[in-house]
Amino acid sequence: MSLYEFTSPVKKLIEELKKIPGIGRKSAQRICFFLLKSQRENALALANAIKEAREQTFFCSICNNITAKDPCEICSGTDRETSKICVVEEPFNIYSIERTDLYKGMYHVLHGNLSPIRGIGPDELKISGLIKRLQEGQVEEIILATSPTTEGNATAHYLSEMIKKNANSIKITRLALGIPIGADIDYVDSVTIARAMEGRIEL
Amino acid sequence: MSLYEFTSPVKKLIEELKKIPGIGRKSAQRICFFLLKSQRENALALANAIKEAREQTFFCSICNNITAKDPCEICSGTDRETSKICVVEEPFNIYSIERTDLYKGMYHVLHGNLSPIRGIGPDELKISGLIKRLQEGQVEEIILATSPTTEGNATAHYLSEMIKKNANSIKITRLALGIPIGADIDYVDSVTIARAMEGRIEL
Repeated sequence: MSLYEFTSPVKKLIEELKKIPGIGRKSAQRICFFLLKSQRENALALANAIKEAREQTFFCSICNNITAKDPCEICSGTDRETSKICVVEEPFNIYSIERTDLYKGMYHVLHGNLSPIRGIGPDELKISGLIKRLQEGQVEEIILATSPTTEGNATAHYLSEMIKKNANSIKITRLALGIPIGADIDYVDSVTIARAMEGRIEL
Repeated sequence: MSLYEFTSPVKKLIEELKKIPGIGRKSAQRICFFLLKSQRENALALANAIKEAREQTFFCSICNNITAKDPCEICSGTDRETSKICVVEEPFNIYSIERTDLYKGMYHVLHGNLSPIRGIGPDELKISGLIKRLQEGQVEEIILATSPTTEGNATAHYLSEMIKKNANSIKITRLALGIPIGADIDYVDSVTIARAMEGRIEL
């Protein structure tokens, strides 16, 4: 007799769950059995939510945010500062920045970072649309809010060169680097402390 | 203007994902955007797999394993030793034991452990069906394979008392406790070492 296997619909569900990054075999099994043991309505509600989200949403034609209407709520908003564009890696970064309730400008989602190792060059990112937006002349400042990682820094550097070449008068900024609020300096890595020292502010 | 929110189908999907134990807000966001950015077919395949698994599977009427046919493949198997029943907490435990390719008996899934704190008493577990199976007289050994945790031990203790009362002649066993293969003894907790010492085997 061959090794015991889960019944075929269970096996299929586990396979599909394993395709999600960060979900391995054990997590997939646990999620699968949670769904099979939970209320029938709960499992079907999740299936429906996936289907509806996938079918009703697409990328905003201006900023590439995920949206159910085009242009998206931010691009079509009447109370936003159109003179600023904040460039982010992923749609959910917009949510993180909006939660600060400080920035009222526009956004542009790159959908990734440059990464030669993973074969992601400028053509794989949503860069040409950004340059076009800048050339329309309304934008005064562009904030490069990619992560301070090797890939995020490389992307910001590439973008800043591209912008200088194509829309020279625009002010280019990057989010400040430093010690996060509430952190114990003893536990902050030395590169971060060095950047915080370089960027120190006069009181 | 109120705080920015994800477009409604996205918000709904994140809410449904957050209902899965172990998936918080950030993980739900990441899974959601993975599904929205992946191939349309991938996302719909997952939705379908959830729907089909939920609609096509149910608990085996004999052992309570999750199955697409009744009785399940193990209970209806002709090459299994019907004189042994291994009692497990959850359906996926069967898979872990079957992978050893050592045990060829039957199973019984409790669907949980006794837990007064979480309000799970004997009536919430699939115990009465087990006692009925034992009283049919074919079973010679019952292996209590609940986890060696407080709750798993309490469940095994309760079951062993119940079995002695209702089917006195049946041999009751529990999985051996000891040092896991490949472990460095320095890193094994003292309770485990104590149990391994108590259960030492003559060579």
